[in-house]
Amino acid sequence: MRAFASDNYAPILPEALDAIAAVNHGHAVSYGADETTARLQSVVHAQFGESASVFPVFNGTGANVVGLRAMLRPWQGVICAESAHLNVDEGGAPEVMGGIKLLTVPTPDGKLTPELVSRRIVRIGDEHVVQPGVISVTQSTELGTLYTIAELRTLGELAHAHGMLFHVDGSRLANAAASLDCELRAITTDVGADVVSLGGTKIGILAGEAVIVLNPELAPALLYLRKQSMQLASKMRFVSAQLLALFEGDVWRRAAGNANAMAARLADGIGNALTITQEVRANAVFAILPPGAAETLQSDFKFYVWDEHTGEVRWMCSWDTTQEDVDAFVAAILKVVA
Amino acid sequence: MRAFASDNYAPILPEALDAIAAVNHGHAVSYGADETTARLQSVVHAQFGESASVFPVFNGTGANVVGLRAMLRPWQGVICAESAHLNVDEGGAPEVMGGIKLLTVPTPDGKLTPELVSRRIVRIGDEHVVQPGVISVTQSTELGTLYTIAELRTLGELAHAHGMLFHVDGSRLANAAASLDCELRAITTDVGADVVSLGGTKIGILAGEAVIVLNPELAPALLYLRKQSMQLASKMRFVSAQLLALFEGDVWRRAAGNANAMAARLADGIGNALTITQEVRANAVFAILPPGAAETLQSDFKFYVWDEHTGEVRWMCSWDTTQEDVDAFVAAILKVVA
Amino acid sequence: MRAFASDNYAPILPEALDAIAAVNHGHAVSYGADETTARLQSVVHAQFGESASVFPVFNGTGANVVGLRAMLRPWQGVICAESAHLNVDEGGAPEVMGGIKLLTVPTPDGKLTPELVSRRIVRIGDEHVVQPGVISVTQSTELGTLYTIAELRTLGELAHAHGMLFHVDGSRLANAAASLDCELRAITTDVGADVVSLGGTKIGILAGEAVIVLNPELAPALLYLRKQSMQLASKMRFVSAQLLALFEGDVWRRAAGNANAMAARLADGIGNALTITQEVRANAVFAILPPGAAETLQSDFKFYVWDEHTGEVRWMCSWDTTQEDVDAFVAAILKVVA
Amino acid sequence: MRAFASDNYAPILPEALDAIAAVNHGHAVSYGADETTARLQSVVHAQFGESASVFPVFNGTGANVVGLRAMLRPWQGVICAESAHLNVDEGGAPEVMGGIKLLTVPTPDGKLTPELVSRRIVRIGDEHVVQPGVISVTQSTELGTLYTIAELRTLGELAHAHGMLFHVDGSRLANAAASLDCELRAITTDVGADVVSLGGTKIGILAGEAVIVLNPELAPALLYLRKQSMQLASKMRFVSAQLLALFEGDVWRRAAGNANAMAARLADGIGNALTITQEVRANAVFAILPPGAAETLQSDFKFYVWDEHTGEVRWMCSWDTTQEDVDAFVAAILKVVA
Repeated sequence: MRAFASDNYAPILPEALDAIAAVNHGHAVSYGADETTARLQSVVHAQFGESASVFPVFNGTGANVVGLRAMLRPWQGVICAESAHLNVDEGGAPEVMGGIKLLTVPTPDGKLTPELVSRRIVRIGDEHVVQPGVISVTQSTELGTLYTIAELRTLGELAHAHGMLFHVDGSRLANAAASLDCELRAITTDVGADVVSLGGTKIGILAGEAVIVLNPELAPALLYLRKQSMQLASKMRFVSAQLLALFEGDVWRRAAGNANAMAARLADGIGNALTITQEVRANAVFAILPPGAAETLQSDFKFYVWDEHTGEVRWMCSWDTTQEDVDAFVAAILKVVA
Repeated sequence: MRAFASDNYAPILPEALDAIAAVNHGHAVSYGADETTARLQSVVHAQFGESASVFPVFNGTGANVVGLRAMLRPWQGVICAESAHLNVDEGGAPEVMGGIKLLTVPTPDGKLTPELVSRRIVRIGDEHVVQPGVISVTQSTELGTLYTIAELRTLGELAHAHGMLFHVDGSRLANAAASLDCELRAITTDVGADVVSLGGTKIGILAGEAVIVLNPELAPALLYLRKQSMQLASKMRFVSAQLLALFEGDVWRRAAGNANAMAARLADGIGNALTITQEVRANAVFAILPPGAAETLQSDFKFYVWDEHTGEVRWMCSWDTTQEDVDAFVAAILKVVA
Repeated sequence: MRAFASDNYAPILPEALDAIAAVNHGHAVSYGADETTARLQSVVHAQFGESASVFPVFNGTGANVVGLRAMLRPWQGVICAESAHLNVDEGGAPEVMGGIKLLTVPTPDGKLTPELVSRRIVRIGDEHVVQPGVISVTQSTELGTLYTIAELRTLGELAHAHGMLFHVDGSRLANAAASLDCELRAITTDVGADVVSLGGTKIGILAGEAVIVLNPELAPALLYLRKQSMQLASKMRFVSAQLLALFEGDVWRRAAGNANAMAARLADGIGNALTITQEVRANAVFAILPPGAAETLQSDFKFYVWDEHTGEVRWMCSWDTTQEDVDAFVAAILKVVA
Repeated sequence: MRAFASDNYAPILPEALDAIAAVNHGHAVSYGADETTARLQSVVHAQFGESASVFPVFNGTGANVVGLRAMLRPWQGVICAESAHLNVDEGGAPEVMGGIKLLTVPTPDGKLTPELVSRRIVRIGDEHVVQPGVISVTQSTELGTLYTIAELRTLGELAHAHGMLFHVDGSRLANAAASLDCELRAITTDVGADVVSLGGTKIGILAGEAVIVLNPELAPALLYLRKQSMQLASKMRFVSAQLLALFEGDVWRRAAGNANAMAARLADGIGNALTITQEVRANAVFAILPPGAAETLQSDFKFYVWDEHTGEVRWMCSWDTTQEDVDAFVAAILKVVA
């Protein structure tokens, strides 16, 4: 099966598999006090700055909930886009497991703006209202769009100006940095992020994400909250080794760069044959298909309908998507809509 | 490093690594709707009976919390041994993440008995008191002891007789079945268990446990609770493949059997030189060391002190522990205590 | 101080005080097994039908959270208006204390419609998404508007048609029934409500609300959830006596009817001098004041600004508001806006 | 009915009823910004010292949960006696609503000691274990016993020496201070308490307790946590007025003193006819009745069996218990056991 359904459908990078095998000898201290995890910490220092600390976890929902729990007291909530993964696709984990109210904002493109955020910074000090405690952005967004570095910096400053913290859901941070052709720190540390969810799985490893804590005051809480939130791997060396495989060199940039390039190629191939509903900046393409077209295409290619009412569909590219995959898919699309 | 510290210090079985590699081709549907997970479901049917359904998760705390959440309403609690992993080593996950009060019982050997449990079945119908909803046993226990099949059946019947459910924390279920020389179902399905946490990591895979639901009424809830509890792997095929590697044939029995045999060899080697505090039935040996002996031994062998007040230590064997490891350790112990 | 700020600013009805005094003799069984609470149960049968059971609680947030906890499993959420008290003014209690995600819908007038609700009934069976479990309406709404009986019935049927339950936040149910000139059951039991939060405090008692359970399957859970949610009064007779004072006869209708009539008089008095932003159906008037007018008026009359951006204010009438209060306030308003 | 079942069976003090009536005129700002609550704050300053702030709540479970939530981060727990109300009689509210694990200690008499507490101060810094964050004592205890001032001070110092906080569950603090013939601050502020649950209901008011915050750093959190925990009364003046009626003068001492004296009279009357199992220091008497005796006595006097296995019963006296009540009960007891 060749699919444009999700970056989670892809296999794992050969580098990830090799990294697992390479650390699979002898006994290692469990729960993160091993040499591989120590090396990962060094790489994170190099990539995110000396104040950064890394806490590997199992998945993206885990990274978000663990990080946000450390940033909030119980009466504080998170300002985020209505379309954020946090709000839409985490099965209520933020609310039910984290006790976190989301203060959502409708957006046209998945991106918060200072104006949109400011409408949620109201009734400060009023005990009847959950107080805004964090601004959370997703970079790249659920809709495949990107914040510029300047946009992120403005939101980070806005958060801090109101005594709030700044969170980056970077489940696809690699895609964003590859697209912006910048370092990871340029869209996290350098724009004032306090905590980052750093994605690994969607770019190509088996299972591994990390909470990157940039605000050192928050780090001690992470240790306990990761364990309590059921996100502490016992045989941590194997998770850390995979993250090392991605981030020690430029594997992340190559893998994400390919996914982005293939999405761009897909959008280019479609040209004006369809309405593409969101700017294609990362590895997602959103388009409107005419009635019936999705069903026809899905007999050969797997993908998801995003909005049944409008006919909008989502096509995702991944580290292993090839030009041939894209070209075959484009040809099929053009044929169906012709 | 050769260690007797924890089965989590061990590397992963070559079969697990091979299984990951073997499924690493092409795209597969994420979140469990893949062919490998379907094969795992078949194996679980074979091992646990036709009513069993399997929900792979990341770790043991996750398996316990997800399973128990499905078994309980908010005013119900879990009767378990005071020494249970649930109570002692899960960072408050049951209480804080699961909203579950543990109704603990002190035990000499980590094992519940009908008498001990019955003391907790009181004030039924009294809204001021958390009502007992589940009896949870650990097999093999945190103290390396074992329930007999008859003992388990009695506890399962006791639970059901009081309208309660029966949970088996089987983080080391393989060690138990290997030691009892029985099938997995003999100490789960056949003794009335409603939900089982089936361990994979401690016997030798990278990261993977499963909630086995034997009571079909509980299965629909599991789907949602696993996701909400941050325990749903996106690239599920790789978790399922590892569990298959263990449980499709008898790899689990061989791996656990070796760990058990090495613990027995260790206990035998020590003989009467030390007080062994718990019956050695699985892969753990608990012994009292004279003052200072632990520190001396720890310069060459890694292990944990269990109780600083009494000098009790815990020695764990794993799938990769060799006779040479044990014999060297025994020699060192005998020398120190001589 | 004469105020139009909140029905919570009003004193308590003499009937409520008398009722407290009347039961203040001798010992009575605590926690609700007393004769006064038994009489309340009879009155609730008469008012809401024989299947109704009553669980007095301390306040409205408590009534809502306790009732909704009984109606939901952890993966289910509540469809409600974005302006609902649940979402805006309960300090995060539904999310943090109840573990309940609110599936909010923007509305122009605080009222859900089948069309608005249906947009939230999506991705059924998808474990990544909190499933809609309850439709919750507020009658009368936070904006002083009312659902007709037919509108309520349609929403109740919609809920049940999708396997959901129907909740009525009746913090001001008395105002609604007085305005519609109907029995309490006509807008609860008879429109398919499963659980109702019945308000007492805002109409004139010291502190007392009740969860009315109309769906008998939910009643057993209430007993435990009320206690666990810290809403069980030990000296229950005094809470029940106040609710009896309201609902045994027609005190509720008289008290709420006065509040409603005074709001209508206020709106009438203003006439076209100001824009009244919501239909005045209960005891609230929402209007737009020109810049500066609110501050001038607030030196003599206490009330709250509802929206600082638009100049919208909220004026509430209560059981003790007099025609003289209203006329003096109208005169002051007209003078300021002249 | 004359009862020895619970201090919650008693009616309310005439002073409490008068206080409610006395503030029942005109409008008052809701949620605590009223003059009566301001006066209560002054009285609390006088009674507990200038650093004290008062947050009235509805009931004792609410006071405990709200106070403890302010004292703890999610990975911290509460060291308390196994017999504490927190653990036994709050329906799981600490765990389920507060997300708080209780680190319980068996005690012979309901009293913690430094030795008992120290056993729970272990594995500090170990993320797998809920860290001790608070020592909570109940004064007077659930078993009718008392801590001396020196004992409390030692426990407060122990808490602070380990970076923990000190909580006093003072649901019956008035009984304790009356028995010790000391000021309220002598067993709270002056022994290092950080937060106190101050009881009102059991001594004689309708419904009203207060969280007294002595550690000013914790006060801001209380505001939000009280609201979120559904413990914020809208018509606060009526709760505050009752607490004022108790604590402005010495009504509390008189009411609690009578209850204590009647318990002492009851114990004296029984003499050696029965085994009294706990020292009688407050308003409770625990005794062993021979088989069948409880049932006989309960036909005329209401009380609870504490332990069905041993025949232990609990007899409670209240502010309205008279010498005649006690003497009649003693006569009945002596007749039954003769």
